[in-house]
Amino acid sequence: MTAMDAHNAASTPPLSRRTERVAGSLIREILKVTQRLEVISFAGGLPADDLMPKLDFAALHGDPRQYGASEGEQPLREAVAARLAGLGLACDAEQVLITSGSQQGIDLVGKLFIDEGSPVLLEAPSYLAAIQAFRVYGAEFHGLRLSEDGIDPEALRQAIARRRPAFVYLIPTFQNPTGYCYSEANRRAVAAVLDEAGVPLVEDDPYRDLAYGPAERTPICAYLRRAPWVYLGSFSKITAPGLRIGYLAASPALFPWLLRLKQASDLHSNRISQAWLARFLEGEAFERHLANLAGVYAERRDTMQASLQRHFSGLAQWRLPDGGLFFWLRLSGECDTLAALQIALASNIAFMPGDPFFPLAEQRYPALRLNFSHAAPADIERGVARLAQVLGECIEPGRLTPGLAA
Amino acid sequence: MTAMDAHNAASTPPLSRRTERVAGSLIREILKVTQRLEVISFAGGLPADDLMPKLDFAALHGDPRQYGASEGEQPLREAVAARLAGLGLACDAEQVLITSGSQQGIDLVGKLFIDEGSPVLLEAPSYLAAIQAFRVYGAEFHGLRLSEDGIDPEALRQAIARRRPAFVYLIPTFQNPTGYCYSEANRRAVAAVLDEAGVPLVEDDPYRDLAYGPAERTPICAYLRRAPWVYLGSFSKITAPGLRIGYLAASPALFPWLLRLKQASDLHSNRISQAWLARFLEGEAFERHLANLAGVYAERRDTMQASLQRHFSGLAQWRLPDGGLFFWLRLSGECDTLAALQIALASNIAFMPGDPFFPLAEQRYPALRLNFSHAAPADIERGVARLAQVLGECIEPGRLTPGLAA
Repeated sequence: MTAMDAHNAASTPPLSRRTERVAGSLIREILKVTQRLEVISFAGGLPADDLMPKLDFAALHGDPRQYGASEGEQPLREAVAARLAGLGLACDAEQVLITSGSQQGIDLVGKLFIDEGSPVLLEAPSYLAAIQAFRVYGAEFHGLRLSEDGIDPEALRQAIARRRPAFVYLIPTFQNPTGYCYSEANRRAVAAVLDEAGVPLVEDDPYRDLAYGPAERTPICAYLRRAPWVYLGSFSKITAPGLRIGYLAASPALFPWLLRLKQASDLHSNRISQAWLARFLEGEAFERHLANLAGVYAERRDTMQASLQRHFSGLAQWRLPDGGLFFWLRLSGECDTLAALQIALASNIAFMPGDPFFPLAEQRYPALRLNFSHAAPADIERGVARLAQVLGECIEPGRLTPGLAA
Repeated sequence: MTAMDAHNAASTPPLSRRTERVAGSLIREILKVTQRLEVISFAGGLPADDLMPKLDFAALHGDPRQYGASEGEQPLREAVAARLAGLGLACDAEQVLITSGSQQGIDLVGKLFIDEGSPVLLEAPSYLAAIQAFRVYGAEFHGLRLSEDGIDPEALRQAIARRRPAFVYLIPTFQNPTGYCYSEANRRAVAAVLDEAGVPLVEDDPYRDLAYGPAERTPICAYLRRAPWVYLGSFSKITAPGLRIGYLAASPALFPWLLRLKQASDLHSNRISQAWLARFLEGEAFERHLANLAGVYAERRDTMQASLQRHFSGLAQWRLPDGGLFFWLRLSGECDTLAALQIALASNIAFMPGDPFFPLAEQRYPALRLNFSHAAPADIERGVARLAQVLGECIEPGRLTPGLAA
């Protein structure tokens, strides 16, 4: 054994109980595979490479090199507050915290609310990286059944009464993974239940600007009158994820806590990205960029819809999403989607198995999530066709899931 | 009450027990005040504004806009591993994790190791933002007495036996706040104690490149043969803090856990900053920049030393630091340094009171930390003179501290 071997031979010391809840690396493994050029990936929620805005750092306001404020850069906070006001979510720039991607907002929410065993209500299925982050802090999940119009307010009321959750986590607009969008009536009813109970709402809204037709998009936070709230936003899907900038807005009683936790986590977010974004949001180019993005993604969605209709009609049920980045396919029979993924990857096709999106194993049904924003249109048709072949051999048609049989 | 008032009127809901340990906002308050141009600030560890390298993003390798790897950009990981090898810390690029500032490395260490009540050994005094971050996770601190040559290895051995700490956190090179630098003999002895006990070492090393004369700087991690380790590094002090890029290297048993926690915290760090840094580290300009920085900071240190000798000789004891960014002044009598800070701020002088650097209240002695890198030389003399006046009126000379009386 060399000195370096000895140096690196240490076994694992005692770690926090938290680490027992740290999930494996499925997403990272998938993303690694999808970096191979020959792979057609429907796995991640990646923007199209050729549609991200050009980053030009030549003429930023001010000097972004020195330490900055934990709150974020004031011009960017003000731009975010103005956009939120435009959505009906009246809030002050002082309630906006710039985060290192909206994933950091999710992590700060977990840090703020969750002790070991804290109950958390969320949609089933829900965003897998939020499930992972909350689980690390010790959340006990209780899944709310999700339909195309949202969640059942009465079921929410009962779940709150029974579970007394630390907060409710919802993605009401172009939900991840299902693409569902809550109706206005459902948003108002959910807000009323939360107000009555005084339970905090954490609303995650990264897809709202990617709408491919008319859709209700007023944040549920905007309807709240009494319940505390945290609204999470992202620039990753509509500009460039490499900038790692998201934001949150929060009701005044929660904001100071989130700010202090942010300071302890990374002091503040990248100032160069913030300065560039503040300038980009100012100009007309931003609105033009959003319109262009929605136009191209709507075409890709339609391309994938046509391919799915050609190849998946007997294999799955799905709904055409009105926005966002994903199709959610509910398979027509039992299927080990993790095993199917390995076979698909061997044919250079990547997708996200449905399992990790379910907070509780007993609520799972066989499903998969397909992204349509990143692959080129020609690859979408080829990839969907090949994927249908793989799944055709993996699905056990004799064993329909109860939800579909009904 | 308007609708917006009602919307924002919610009281605080139940939060995690963690929040009971979240410290107030002293640093943030001080940093806010120091943004006023008329304030001479010795408070933060800020690089000199005019010495930060010019950021030029025009010719980066590759396209940094898309999602990236949680591990960090490979060229930067390789550059970091090569630099660490040059320090005697043999490690592979696969053991390097790029973080959003080294503060994130500290936070990830807390997340990895600390449950409520987990014992942590560290120097007394130690870095206040590490104390804060570890406290949020529930650390129970046990302070190790620090002298100019390091900590007493026998005291470390006994504290480990008595406390069974989750890890030992040390800043052996130009320690923050004291500026002390462990001798080679002490580094080797500390490593031997840790190896014998198999207790993890977390070594924080943000100042190592800012040396103003010959000083022992081999990381203690390099001497370990068996104990697990995490080495934390920063680019903030030697390039530009606004980039928010630091790194950690870890022994193989710890690395995968830190990587997964990083992924759950913010997916990955800013890619534009990483790409710029990878290119800057490649060139000769980087070594020239370091030499220039050390030269200018050495002059500022000497300026502050002369001012302190002129104005503080009866008020405090201190040691000329061989590197880093700070003087640590041990006051010659009892003093409420937080009250003194308020008075100093009213005269437009900022400094860091010593109190928050002590993990345990009972180990405190009256002290303050003065930064010499950020203020211009003329301001150093003016500021130190004015500060001496303020402290002269706050120190109670009749009540000498035991440490000084001895």
